Amino acid sequence: MLRIKYEQMYSEFFRVLLKVGFSQERAELCARLFAETSRDGVYTHGLNRFPRFIENIRNGNVEIHAIPEKISSFGAIERWDGNSGPGNLNAYSCMNRAIELAHENGMGCVSIRNTNHWMRAGTYGWQAAEEGCIGICWTNTMPNMPPWGTKESKLGNNPIVFAVPRKEGHIVLDMAMTMFSYGKIESYSMHSKPLPVDGGFDIDGNLTRDPKAILESGRSLPIGFWKGSGFSLMLDLIATILSGGNSTYLIGKNGGERNISQTFIAIDLAKLPEQNSIYRSVNETIEDLHSAEPVEEDGKIYYPGERTLLTRKENLEKGIPVEQYFWEQVLKL
Amino acid sequence: MLRIKYEQMYSEFFRVLLKVGFSQERAELCARLFAETSRDGVYTHGLNRFPRFIENIRNGNVEIHAIPEKISSFGAIERWDGNSGPGNLNAYSCMNRAIELAHENGMGCVSIRNTNHWMRAGTYGWQAAEEGCIGICWTNTMPNMPPWGTKESKLGNNPIVFAVPRKEGHIVLDMAMTMFSYGKIESYSMHSKPLPVDGGFDIDGNLTRDPKAILESGRSLPIGFWKGSGFSLMLDLIATILSGGNSTYLIGKNGGERNISQTFIAIDLAKLPEQNSIYRSVNETIEDLHSAEPVEEDGKIYYPGERTLLTRKENLEKGIPVEQYFWEQVLKL
Repeated sequence: MLRIKYEQMYSEFFRVLLKVGFSQERAELCARLFAETSRDGVYTHGLNRFPRFIENIRNGNVEIHAIPEKISSFGAIERWDGNSGPGNLNAYSCMNRAIELAHENGMGCVSIRNTNHWMRAGTYGWQAAEEGCIGICWTNTMPNMPPWGTKESKLGNNPIVFAVPRKEGHIVLDMAMTMFSYGKIESYSMHSKPLPVDGGFDIDGNLTRDPKAILESGRSLPIGFWKGSGFSLMLDLIATILSGGNSTYLIGKNGGERNISQTFIAIDLAKLPEQNSIYRSVNETIEDLHSAEPVEEDGKIYYPGERTLLTRKENLEKGIPVEQYFWEQVLKL
Repeated sequence: MLRIKYEQMYSEFFRVLLKVGFSQERAELCARLFAETSRDGVYTHGLNRFPRFIENIRNGNVEIHAIPEKISSFGAIERWDGNSGPGNLNAYSCMNRAIELAHENGMGCVSIRNTNHWMRAGTYGWQAAEEGCIGICWTNTMPNMPPWGTKESKLGNNPIVFAVPRKEGHIVLDMAMTMFSYGKIESYSMHSKPLPVDGGFDIDGNLTRDPKAILESGRSLPIGFWKGSGFSLMLDLIATILSGGNSTYLIGKNGGERNISQTFIAIDLAKLPEQNSIYRSVNETIEDLHSAEPVEEDGKIYYPGERTLLTRKENLEKGIPVEQYFWEQVLKL
């Protein structure tokens, strides 16, 4: 496995972004967000996604100079328009604004319409936690999941993030509404391996772990069956209403995942007292989780985000593992 | 099936609540919340739960005269103490306060510690929607779900509610982090029926639909396996931190589901423009959902809360179906 130093990966991204026309400052942030994503082990949305991001700039889907614009606001809530700018820069800017609002009002909620794919969802949770805030954010997506009881993809997999800041390591959950992303199902299919649990339906409507059967039917499985189906709809509607933007339905009608809607919430913990006793309680809860008797002998139980920190440490020490194919693609850009 | 008129059920609850010492005003609200829960078809948390609620008053777990007390606040966020008052009155009061904060600040977030079981979670979502607000709220619970990969119940099933107001019928999702509540698993077990999908593990660690096997192992299944497990932890930690109250871990240590923590968020939609075009978009999305090709011939697809409204209408017309056993228990109180 080829490993590339974080700084080298960052520099390559930065070089390409300058070349396609980004300003120095925006290229720095964009390169950092991509490099940190691979550094943290989410390779699909870091290096591996970078060539497609550049392609979306070249084909005009992403406007590199577009800056989000405030449309309306009231107190702690704001609505912005992303003007089809880079999804990660737009999202970073929105969470940043939500954090500012939280510093002023205890909490803030910023929603954005007409934005693009934000790459790794978790990025904006880590961002909030670094600023001492609870962060909650989600995005809608193309239709890629059938509502429970139906055969047609009408809902998005709408990833949501919850982040809790903590000195000993932030606790960050980043999850989509499908059991497995299409990317993951394709990867299992390519390696002819069954999914670890049911991930969708075959063409006859039976639950299955067979990735090929799910790709054939196009019927991926919502988490918790009817529950994830409803959850996806709620996230879509709330982001749509707060941003005044497109729902998954309209994104699907327009073809291609563009002009999507997102919501970012931050809550500033420094505004509430009793932090010491509260964090004692949080840490006791984490210790209790770690102490749970594992199913597998020698099994180790992790809190959300714990393995991210282990991967981050390892990748900073040894370099970030890359698939040669993607790395060479970037070098050629 | 015996059916009881809404007014009659309400009157019986009201009578009993006065008898155990509630003030007239608080008895009215408490009786209404219980009666509306059964009216809306959530029988387990309405009539059927009422005798246990009274028992919890008589054994001192619920202090009927306790009023929630503000502990601290900053802008749009507030922390309250429930003082072991009736869980439904405390929760109603918190969502009410979150709505007031939303009227002032666009959004509000109220968290409460040392409160009791709020009965039907959805109640507080409907409450927010009736006031034109998006409502999001959740509670922590006793440990009743093993973290993914473990055998020990260390997490709660922590129900969460999302509500979106809409003229044609509010959209309200009310879901717990387990596939099925213990109440539901017990009910399937009593009728010797298999669960519709896997609901937990048997004693050997195999996924199963057999309710008896799950009751034996005590290992209920989180929605989305590792995802629901992480989601439950995040909800627990956020409610704990914001309220300064107990996490599921401490609730379990204290024995009995008391002194729990909850969070209530409201966002006032009237503070944002473009309501007409936004609701056109919401309604198109709902129409699109309704139009999805069903798996079952003649299958009908519902949005979250749609069947609640149908049940409500039917129960108001024909009376609320009751199990004789529970109805007679209440009559005897």
